[in-house]
Amino acid sequence: MCQLLGMSSNQRAAITFSFTGFSQRGGKTDSHVDGWGIAFYEGGGCRVFHDDQPASDSALARFVRDYPIKSRIVISHLRKATQGAVNLANCHPFQREWQGQTWLFANNGDLQNFSPALCGDYLPVGTTDSEVAFCYLMQTLRKRFAGRGSRVPWQELAPEIARITAEIATHGNFNYLLTNGEATFAHCSSKLYLLKRQHPFAMATLKDCDLSMNLGALNAEGDRMALIATEPLTCEAAWTAFQTGETQVLVDGESVWRHVEPTTRRFAPPASYNGREWADQTLTPV
Amino acid sequence: MCQLLGMSSNQRAAITFSFTGFSQRGGKTDSHVDGWGIAFYEGGGCRVFHDDQPASDSALARFVRDYPIKSRIVISHLRKATQGAVNLANCHPFQREWQGQTWLFANNGDLQNFSPALCGDYLPVGTTDSEVAFCYLMQTLRKRFAGRGSRVPWQELAPEIARITAEIATHGNFNYLLTNGEATFAHCSSKLYLLKRQHPFAMATLKDCDLSMNLGALNAEGDRMALIATEPLTCEAAWTAFQTGETQVLVDGESVWRHVEPTTRRFAPPASYNGREWADQTLTPV
Repeated sequence: MCQLLGMSSNQRAAITFSFTGFSQRGGKTDSHVDGWGIAFYEGGGCRVFHDDQPASDSALARFVRDYPIKSRIVISHLRKATQGAVNLANCHPFQREWQGQTWLFANNGDLQNFSPALCGDYLPVGTTDSEVAFCYLMQTLRKRFAGRGSRVPWQELAPEIARITAEIATHGNFNYLLTNGEATFAHCSSKLYLLKRQHPFAMATLKDCDLSMNLGALNAEGDRMALIATEPLTCEAAWTAFQTGETQVLVDGESVWRHVEPTTRRFAPPASYNGREWADQTLTPV
Repeated sequence: MCQLLGMSSNQRAAITFSFTGFSQRGGKTDSHVDGWGIAFYEGGGCRVFHDDQPASDSALARFVRDYPIKSRIVISHLRKATQGAVNLANCHPFQREWQGQTWLFANNGDLQNFSPALCGDYLPVGTTDSEVAFCYLMQTLRKRFAGRGSRVPWQELAPEIARITAEIATHGNFNYLLTNGEATFAHCSSKLYLLKRQHPFAMATLKDCDLSMNLGALNAEGDRMALIATEPLTCEAAWTAFQTGETQVLVDGESVWRHVEPTTRRFAPPASYNGREWADQTLTPV
């Protein structure tokens, strides 16, 4: 199991504060120590940082915490390996191009008996079930919209992505963030939280380290931002849990589409669950 | 025009020394200030750093100079924009997946009237002629070897890559580094140098800054390394110029294949050429 962090914003914003808390879970406040990654879109381009070291004390993670990169779409991932060795090829987010856009995918889950037929449009570089799921998702989208002369808008992509997701989720626990730099698609089988921030911006205090920030000083009246995380990052009360089988689309910091798939299996945390034990427990489908 | 740097080695090695000199050309000793990138393979995975700031004083370049990442294959690029705006999407190296391998491409040149038919297998994200050339190259390889159940070895790839390269090079000046993490393909229309290093390793002094290194202290008897650069990086005498139309394949620090295409147009540097003026001169086909 792993941890996910995503941001969608209508203004370019630095995620250094949130990433400072999030990265503690890669070795300090939690045990997701098998590599990490973070991606920042800037226009059509993106920067993707990968590292197979624990995020809490990796030199690259320290650079990312200290160096504010402003972006409207960010996704990040801390890995706790379930399938696939600990190495760079297995670090999320994974990256593929479709329709002249860079698509990125980060996944938290565990798929069983999942060996879809991959025709070669997209093949995994590493050995994770996550990358197989990503390749299958992109291959299915490519075939579904083959021959389209222009980019397919998120309004058409969303129901198709939700349909493919429901199919993949029959194989196990499947939470993810997927983005093409315009829209972010977020899906939950077991655990994912959403936080919307807008004017008036309040004070935020991280849960994973002793750090607070006055968001009002950094944001203006029209700014709007959504954060998505496996576990709430801050003490703000507005973190809302996704439902089992829920897919949302976020554009410019706003949730613009939502679907709850009733057939998705619920993977409940064990009775003794708390944040610190999450990673070490096998989730039981209920 | 831009600057290229590549390394192929039979042992994992840090390129911090060479990159320290190379990155000075991104603003200090030369004017390739329109972004830069560097990629390190580690097993099948790779780390790719991109930045649209000048390499000589970018915070990320400073991190890469100071933090030794050991790799057997590295390619790096400093951009001086000829086609396409200065932004992250136009920073090299460009990246695509084929046959479950990450392919990277960095280019120095200027192609004119080059608008090949791209079927959609690979489409450019940015607006450079370089990325169009890369997409066309990858598309042609994919079609040529369609239906192959296993990865195509470099022995079969090399003549096909040289053939596609000759076709693209009819459109203008075209120097590049291309790699799948196993073999590095290097091509020269106008200017590219190769340096082979092996035991006994000597002292090396950078040309772009006041820094020397005793390579003998860092390398063992069986170590072998090849560096490729637009301009020699060090004062070592063994830097050898590529011929016009020459393609070489490097594997594990060794040149394993070579072809010189006689039809390739030669783009000669102007008579007043010296290293500092290279970037500011229009090259003349002769």
